[in-house]
Amino acid sequence: MAYDADDTRRRIFEAATAEFARYGLAGARVARIAEEAKANKQAIYLYYGSKEKLFAAVVRAKLEEVSCAVTIDPDAVAESVGHMFDWYREHPELIRLLLWEALEADDCFIGENERRAAFRDKVRFLADSGVVPASDDPSCVRAGQDLLFTLMGLIAWNFAVPGMCRAVLDEDDEQAVYARRRQYVMDAARLLTTAARESRQVARG
Amino acid sequence: MAYDADDTRRRIFEAATAEFARYGLAGARVARIAEEAKANKQAIYLYYGSKEKLFAAVVRAKLEEVSCAVTIDPDAVAESVGHMFDWYREHPELIRLLLWEALEADDCFIGENERRAAFRDKVRFLADSGVVPASDDPSCVRAGQDLLFTLMGLIAWNFAVPGMCRAVLDEDDEQAVYARRRQYVMDAARLLTTAARESRQVARG
Repeated sequence: MAYDADDTRRRIFEAATAEFARYGLAGARVARIAEEAKANKQAIYLYYGSKEKLFAAVVRAKLEEVSCAVTIDPDAVAESVGHMFDWYREHPELIRLLLWEALEADDCFIGENERRAAFRDKVRFLADSGVVPASDDPSCVRAGQDLLFTLMGLIAWNFAVPGMCRAVLDEDDEQAVYARRRQYVMDAARLLTTAARESRQVARG
Repeated sequence: MAYDADDTRRRIFEAATAEFARYGLAGARVARIAEEAKANKQAIYLYYGSKEKLFAAVVRAKLEEVSCAVTIDPDAVAESVGHMFDWYREHPELIRLLLWEALEADDCFIGENERRAAFRDKVRFLADSGVVPASDDPSCVRAGQDLLFTLMGLIAWNFAVPGMCRAVLDEDDEQAVYARRRQYVMDAARLLTTAARESRQVARG
């Protein structure tokens, strides 16, 4: 069978995603990724340069994936937030990758400028579509940025610290926890979005 | 100089807090904790039993510390949230410990029952002091639990993913980021608390 470079890259990428999500950046082993991907370590370094760069590529791809999978419907922000909640639940590797990145790579954050540009586009979309007041006035731009970051956290926090969630909700049934949190998060998103749109109370900075 | 067991324990605890906050559970080295604490590894195992138990003791102590340092004023919940925000900022080890716990120890969460009991007391306080409707009706208890977990996340998320925060806010100045986020978080806390008190929109589960 001929050597298929694209297929090798894909296998490396999938194995790397699982390895990094489980063990983080420091704990991940390139040898284990190679074995799982049926590739060799040299191919990994050839394609990606270093373990750190491979990690950054995995995080970036995962953020692009969620960004494509769930778009914000300006007429139904709370429902979009509900879909995002479901996506986080169905892709537990996303929040783990983001937390490992924060714990292990915040000082050497590869691709921060690119990420900023992507979020700038999202904030612009929130303004253009009327979710927040559309104006180039800095306070309006800030309202969109603050709302976006808060909605992300409102969703992600539930998956970031699941043990803490069980403890505070005093609940063992995982399904019940998710159902409660999904409803609450959507309701809270509705409140915060209305406030941002009316430019009162929140985000007056 | 006579051997002072209390002082040794204190030094071990401080060194362990710094080591776990920096490297997490898997990455922490008992030998490094011993060296930093000017103690020996045997003393650490004698006092705490295992690295996992020492980690659990450190997390528990840090949660007790924040719980004592910042209490919720039922007449000024948003201001209390602002103080909690400051505490997280001044004690960066807290959020790191919570995230390491979630990533590395969620399956073998030591002391979950004790933590649940502590949060049950806090939820009861929110009801007794009128922050949420005081009733043994399950929906009222749930309103308090959901509000508490959400306020924690509203604060903690900013410190959990600082790089993401900079990227979404498109901001380099750390002071400016904190000032904006502190204001937003307080305003959002005010909105969510009012909604919980009125038992409408949020937490109707």
